[in-house]
Amino acid sequence: MNECMRTPPSLLSLSIDSALLNISSISDLSPLPDHIICDLFLKTLSAGKLNEKVLKLFIATGKDEVLSLIEALNIRQIHSPVLPTICFKMSNATINDSEVDIVIAAINPDLKSFLNEWRPIISQFHLIIVKDPDMKQELQIPEGFNADVFTKADITRKVGSSTSIVFSGYSCRYFGYLVSRKKYIISIDDDCTPARDSNGDLVDVVAQHIANLKTPATPFFFNTLYDPFRKGADFVRGYPFSLRSGVTCGLSCGLWLNLADLDAPTQALKPEQRNSRYVDAVMTVPVRALLPVSGINIAFDREVVGPALLPALRLAGEGKFRWETMEDIWCGMCVKVVCDHLGLGVKSGMPYVWRKERGDAVQSLKKEWEGVKLMEEVVPFFQSVRLPRSAVTAEDCVVSMAKTVKEELGKVDPMFARASDAMAEWVKLWKSVGSSSSGA
Amino acid sequence: MNECMRTPPSLLSLSIDSALLNISSISDLSPLPDHIICDLFLKTLSAGKLNEKVLKLFIATGKDEVLSLIEALNIRQIHSPVLPTICFKMSNATINDSEVDIVIAAINPDLKSFLNEWRPIISQFHLIIVKDPDMKQELQIPEGFNADVFTKADITRKVGSSTSIVFSGYSCRYFGYLVSRKKYIISIDDDCTPARDSNGDLVDVVAQHIANLKTPATPFFFNTLYDPFRKGADFVRGYPFSLRSGVTCGLSCGLWLNLADLDAPTQALKPEQRNSRYVDAVMTVPVRALLPVSGINIAFDREVVGPALLPALRLAGEGKFRWETMEDIWCGMCVKVVCDHLGLGVKSGMPYVWRKERGDAVQSLKKEWEGVKLMEEVVPFFQSVRLPRSAVTAEDCVVSMAKTVKEELGKVDPMFARASDAMAEWVKLWKSVGSSSSGA
Repeated sequence: MNECMRTPPSLLSLSIDSALLNISSISDLSPLPDHIICDLFLKTLSAGKLNEKVLKLFIATGKDEVLSLIEALNIRQIHSPVLPTICFKMSNATINDSEVDIVIAAINPDLKSFLNEWRPIISQFHLIIVKDPDMKQELQIPEGFNADVFTKADITRKVGSSTSIVFSGYSCRYFGYLVSRKKYIISIDDDCTPARDSNGDLVDVVAQHIANLKTPATPFFFNTLYDPFRKGADFVRGYPFSLRSGVTCGLSCGLWLNLADLDAPTQALKPEQRNSRYVDAVMTVPVRALLPVSGINIAFDREVVGPALLPALRLAGEGKFRWETMEDIWCGMCVKVVCDHLGLGVKSGMPYVWRKERGDAVQSLKKEWEGVKLMEEVVPFFQSVRLPRSAVTAEDCVVSMAKTVKEELGKVDPMFARASDAMAEWVKLWKSVGSSSSGA
Repeated sequence: MNECMRTPPSLLSLSIDSALLNISSISDLSPLPDHIICDLFLKTLSAGKLNEKVLKLFIATGKDEVLSLIEALNIRQIHSPVLPTICFKMSNATINDSEVDIVIAAINPDLKSFLNEWRPIISQFHLIIVKDPDMKQELQIPEGFNADVFTKADITRKVGSSTSIVFSGYSCRYFGYLVSRKKYIISIDDDCTPARDSNGDLVDVVAQHIANLKTPATPFFFNTLYDPFRKGADFVRGYPFSLRSGVTCGLSCGLWLNLADLDAPTQALKPEQRNSRYVDAVMTVPVRALLPVSGINIAFDREVVGPALLPALRLAGEGKFRWETMEDIWCGMCVKVVCDHLGLGVKSGMPYVWRKERGDAVQSLKKEWEGVKLMEEVVPFFQSVRLPRSAVTAEDCVVSMAKTVKEELGKVDPMFARASDAMAEWVKLWKSVGSSSSGA
């Protein structure tokens, strides 16, 4: 006993590894004063050394402080190593190259400078390049990329010509989602180049998107210090411990420096405005809050939410500028509703891309009105739509939502009825092309 | 007509002021080509010069492009000047000194260095300093501040001694809220000093909090570029125009550099962790999303939500360190529920304060468990509580919520029953002390 009472200081002065080596049985721990046991427990925990065996030893001490610590921190005896919520750290998300597809919708024929600028960041990954079927010119792709290119002929061969889905313009990227077999998809518009962070370093969109997707999302309670799984961040006081393990992140929405993703009227009103604010944050968009997902710079877990990223809403006068489209906004609301229903998360914020100027917003104004006005119908619909409990996969959710779109919005505008048809057909395609999450 | 056709280039080359001077009747506009009228309209709008008279002239042209622009932008003929949503700019919020009270809870007797560090930012404003009634020592306040100091004797005189509200420790600041007569209150803990932004400039918490409160909040749809009312920011494509006018912001929650507001277990586990990430953003927390409001650095519109900022939940072992309290977390959930019910907004993010180290988290662990465990009961309660339609003021909401707290949480722990009593009594006090929003 006396010897045990002398042990603590030496135990504590040892590294946790050595200290734990010295704790091999309950008799090494029990005789120690409560606060020493508590301290040892915390150190073991924070060193990530709390495995099942050690946890059992601490539990066996029967010390109140340790037991309430274990209870409060929601630590369960799971397979070793024990990963209590509080200890969950952002694994410096190791990216397996074979898990990622980069999907590029080629709206412009010359991809040389685009791909060369992205080379340092994406050349190690497999690229799926889908050529806008409306585009006649030959694609120009530089050497040194592992890329599969899909053209109008490929699209027709795969999906037939009777489809109600139109894969032209920005919507051609969805064909890439359909033929991918990877877990994660990252998609960047072809008028973007890599951004630099506030230190002037090149932003690695792949690493940042994958980190967003591989660390949990926290849609059920807002964390004021943003994504708690980023290095140096954490949950703040008052954040319920039972919610700290978070949920799977399905979608990561990146942002834009220089030319922001504004609508045509805003762009026309503020032609000189550039986004120069680099906000060093990622956050989970809370459950039931809708957001305008931009297709310019996104990544998602294809296995989990892939079927919900679909080309459905097509404006009559849709053009080849982002502000002339609504396909991504509609798609984003679908995914968000699906994620909310399935208990998945959506993150927004970093990584940034640098978006180059192009197009004349004033010329786009006439086309864009349609989209701007549609939002007033679309938002209340998505805010109120509820999916049945029987919908347990993204496919189920989309099929169910397609039905409701037709019932509730179909009469408002034939465009919505067509969107509903496209959604239903998309799920059929997804299954037949073999990307179904339930296996091919 | 010929002359009119010659007019546009010259009109457009003029400043908007001069151009508008030249448009005095419909006959000046109508003959112009459509795109010139449209362009003039946009320029007028973006220059903030679209008043009712000019709007009428543009409407009278009957040009489709202009009419659909007016419709889509949700521009109504309101009292001049016309303020279309899209044109709403962050007024470089002029602060009226007489609108602001700075409330300081003095937990430590020596406020000299604290106030001297804050002098450049707060010395022009009226200070309400409330001395922790548990503290025996004399307060030390440097010269040159316009401060009213309230002590235990003042508290007893004003609220009597029979009250179920305990104003000791961090809760003494609520007495300051009670006796303030200003529209806005800013409250900073006495262990914080001014932070510096990423350029090394001193952060003006007053200006930033007041800007947050004076510009609208947008709780009904998430804007991916954060607060659209900040300089250089805007609503992104897809954000519904009908929601762009936003709602009144009731509460602005600031953040902390250096020592973040972590709970005792997290602080104990990561004693070396410091928050060094300056996130250059403010955002509205979406409706129905709860957040852990920290009382360390907040500001609010007292006239609108004052009665909902209340000292209700008191832990049995509550101490004089932030991580030993839950009063602000409880209070924050009350305010958020009240704001959601009344259609007001809550912002989180900038401004930052610099938070100094103090206290030994490990020593606080035993006290803190209680609070950590309580959250598991408290969060589901606040997530599900619904207020009656008849509750149309913050006072109504608090009275109604107090009743539900007693009914639903009262049995779980007597602490909640006491919190309910304190909430009901707070509203009575608020009315009797004359701070009621319905007048004294």
